[in-house]
Amino acid sequence: MFPRNAWYVAATADELGRELLGRTLLDRPVVLYRREDGAPVALEDRCSHRFVPLSKGYLVGDVVQCGYHGLEFDCTGACVHVPGQNSTPSGADIEAFPLCEKWQLIWIWMGDPALADQSLIPDIWRNDHPDWTVIVGEPIPVQGDYRLVADNLLDPSHVSFVHRSTLGTEVVAEVPQKATQEGDTVRVTRWVLDSPAAPVYAKLGNFGPDDNVDRWQIMTFTAPSMVEVYMGSCLTGTGAPEGDRSQGIELYAYNLVTPETADSCIYFWTFVREFAAGDTKISEMVRSNFVEAFTEDVEVIEQVHAGLKRYADTPVKNLPVDAGAIRARRVIDHMVTEEGATQSA
Amino acid sequence: MFPRNAWYVAATADELGRELLGRTLLDRPVVLYRREDGAPVALEDRCSHRFVPLSKGYLVGDVVQCGYHGLEFDCTGACVHVPGQNSTPSGADIEAFPLCEKWQLIWIWMGDPALADQSLIPDIWRNDHPDWTVIVGEPIPVQGDYRLVADNLLDPSHVSFVHRSTLGTEVVAEVPQKATQEGDTVRVTRWVLDSPAAPVYAKLGNFGPDDNVDRWQIMTFTAPSMVEVYMGSCLTGTGAPEGDRSQGIELYAYNLVTPETADSCIYFWTFVREFAAGDTKISEMVRSNFVEAFTEDVEVIEQVHAGLKRYADTPVKNLPVDAGAIRARRVIDHMVTEEGATQSA
Amino acid sequence: MFPRNAWYVAATADELGRELLGRTLLDRPVVLYRREDGAPVALEDRCSHRFVPLSKGYLVGDVVQCGYHGLEFDCTGACVHVPGQNSTPSGADIEAFPLCEKWQLIWIWMGDPALADQSLIPDIWRNDHPDWTVIVGEPIPVQGDYRLVADNLLDPSHVSFVHRSTLGTEVVAEVPQKATQEGDTVRVTRWVLDSPAAPVYAKLGNFGPDDNVDRWQIMTFTAPSMVEVYMGSCLTGTGAPEGDRSQGIELYAYNLVTPETADSCIYFWTFVREFAAGDTKISEMVRSNFVEAFTEDVEVIEQVHAGLKRYADTPVKNLPVDAGAIRARRVIDHMVTEEGATQSA
Repeated sequence: MFPRNAWYVAATADELGRELLGRTLLDRPVVLYRREDGAPVALEDRCSHRFVPLSKGYLVGDVVQCGYHGLEFDCTGACVHVPGQNSTPSGADIEAFPLCEKWQLIWIWMGDPALADQSLIPDIWRNDHPDWTVIVGEPIPVQGDYRLVADNLLDPSHVSFVHRSTLGTEVVAEVPQKATQEGDTVRVTRWVLDSPAAPVYAKLGNFGPDDNVDRWQIMTFTAPSMVEVYMGSCLTGTGAPEGDRSQGIELYAYNLVTPETADSCIYFWTFVREFAAGDTKISEMVRSNFVEAFTEDVEVIEQVHAGLKRYADTPVKNLPVDAGAIRARRVIDHMVTEEGATQSA
Repeated sequence: MFPRNAWYVAATADELGRELLGRTLLDRPVVLYRREDGAPVALEDRCSHRFVPLSKGYLVGDVVQCGYHGLEFDCTGACVHVPGQNSTPSGADIEAFPLCEKWQLIWIWMGDPALADQSLIPDIWRNDHPDWTVIVGEPIPVQGDYRLVADNLLDPSHVSFVHRSTLGTEVVAEVPQKATQEGDTVRVTRWVLDSPAAPVYAKLGNFGPDDNVDRWQIMTFTAPSMVEVYMGSCLTGTGAPEGDRSQGIELYAYNLVTPETADSCIYFWTFVREFAAGDTKISEMVRSNFVEAFTEDVEVIEQVHAGLKRYADTPVKNLPVDAGAIRARRVIDHMVTEEGATQSA
Repeated sequence: MFPRNAWYVAATADELGRELLGRTLLDRPVVLYRREDGAPVALEDRCSHRFVPLSKGYLVGDVVQCGYHGLEFDCTGACVHVPGQNSTPSGADIEAFPLCEKWQLIWIWMGDPALADQSLIPDIWRNDHPDWTVIVGEPIPVQGDYRLVADNLLDPSHVSFVHRSTLGTEVVAEVPQKATQEGDTVRVTRWVLDSPAAPVYAKLGNFGPDDNVDRWQIMTFTAPSMVEVYMGSCLTGTGAPEGDRSQGIELYAYNLVTPETADSCIYFWTFVREFAAGDTKISEMVRSNFVEAFTEDVEVIEQVHAGLKRYADTPVKNLPVDAGAIRARRVIDHMVTEEGATQSA
């Protein structure tokens, strides 16, 4: 169900430190931590002796010590000490996973390490650029297939119904959206012209009650599980559709979903903006509004997941709004087929 | 396990209004509501697009709007609008179920709609008759096979043990009961003559501490899942067994059980009486005493259900007290066989 | 997985009284109580009629009365009364299990009753001897295979990691242990010479901060599930390794584990000591310290159990510290094979 030869977000940079962090990623238990020099490490979260999670143990210098019998594993997964023994047994090593810290996130590669090319990490440079103010969200656990998150993001038609109180407006529901594809990149675009601003935009953009805006949502899917959402609103008549987006606000949301299991995933996200740079009050407003919206999304995604499992034998009824999601899934399916990936137990 | 071509109670009349009510009935999700003109509606609780429960969505006029993408379904289950589309796709309709509001209850027919003859609804006219004061109970969820509720009701010998504090008396346990059958109607009768009144009857009937009473329990099973319990106590020597029941009190309990799944059901009930007509204090006493007794029943029914599942390969040991229940099950089995019903997924 | 022809602890003597106690033992439900003359009784906890747990019913004299229909079972499991019937039906009896009250514990035999020889009960005479002060612990529920408890106890090398705050010291981890076997008895011995006392021993033995001690742990496994832990510390140089253990303290812990299911067990334990005889303050200190340590053990045992289930197809990596546990398991396996025991449903 998920390609293994790909970079996934394992944690935000802020989450990792000198505490052991245990997580399930791509159906495998992983323990994450930083070395004394700050470099991030990811090991299989399973002592080779009696299968206790190493994340329940201790971090001693750069070495992880099992909390049961004290076996020690270094950053490469090598078993380097067994208490009471002068040498370490063969076959006791565990797996280490390539990691890369970039864009305020920790990326993990759980497929063939020889293929772990860091240049494949999506280029989300705004997260690090001084002109842009970044919000790195708390990861959100989702009880659902990771692909449902992209399905949701690639379909702006849900906004009017799921996000009534935050992002939705009455008129938006009926505006068509357009799905395109270039190579493995899928894009869904929707412009809502000359309409009242959505509640969040009205607040952030200081639009007046009589102002109409041109609003855009441009979602770009990068396989296997990132969706950039470029969104904004400008005063109608100021040239936003033609490219001048100075008379309003724009934001980028980077949505990065990592499968835990076939039935759950972790939803990582960052938000960047140029307007109100460094304004922590605005940042807090953005964060709380979008957390509220994500919570609404998660609720409906979990309902879809439960429904699809319950009616596994019933075909879904695809609609034009699903065009982007269907294309994205085809890209994922192709990746999985290509690598002959099979889901681990 | 349950006949489909039958009327079951889906809700009490009071439960239904302009809020969407989601319920599982006969292994299918159902959403219930009232139209603006008050007529009750039952639809499949599953949007045909991505299988989200419609009960999580919105009621707009008489139409149900899915909370995910806003698909709209009318009272017949027809998909009448998809936001962003000029026409509705074929194959997007959902099922609507025949309903009938009668006896302060909402009855649903989930089998072949062509057979949904309202004259088949049991005649519990006392619920609507001005001489009778009716109590409509809150539905009680039961984690057990719906047939166990009838088993329980058709066997008054449990009263002395399960309902010690409410309905039971020491002497009752040893009094034999009699099961009879006419067509598909099964009746169990028990008379306890010349004995002290049970606690509840003593309170309701104002019997003195030295009064002895003649007490009757007459349970009538109507397939697939209704049990009328006609019960009462009159002063001994005043002719109750012969037919004069004026020197005491009598009540009818209508017990209506609707399967949710193979392992759970909803227990609906109404209580009617002529004595103390309209006396709300007495109504409250009856309600609270019988809710307490039902709670005791539910506890033991759930124990039986768990025991029967755990020891699925062990034969139960039938006793004479099971005669009524065994006959009732035969009637149900026959109905199921007749309609070739198979349990849906 | 567990031999049936063996004595297991069903309860502590203190737990049993005139209340019905329901427990699952060796995959079977058991109801325990004391007769009016104080003798303990164990019956199958399942009414033969509708499989309700008898432990939810009533104790009437020496007879158990089912809480549903009042069937009565005597101490031999015979059905002696059915309300409303003059005679009892054949085939309604339930099983009674041999019990023996000894060493402040209630022992049960769930295999062939003809083999229930009380002389096979382990001789833990200190529990009853006036020179020894006994602490009988509250039984501890463990969500794990019962054999993991013996694995844990037979391997003192875990002490430094699991019990850092109570029993562990830095130095202990590296000290080798020795496993031996005589017949079906497996023994693991470890001496830690000339080292600082562990926190608990320092408190109990009044060792000074500059005192070094010789410390021993001698674990003796008796199949299928008892581990005696003989442990203590004496001032270094006072002859403890040679046999003089007067200059310090010693304790015996009797650990008795009874399987509930393949995935859970009950951990019974007693602690005996000669020092500070009858001193309730010391008893309380011992009890609370060892309960704390047991809690740490249970946590790691449950992690191992979950890990072994999750990676059922991955071979564990045995180490020299497992020598005792591996021998003990061989003894258990042999017992199971010998009796051709098969796990009940």
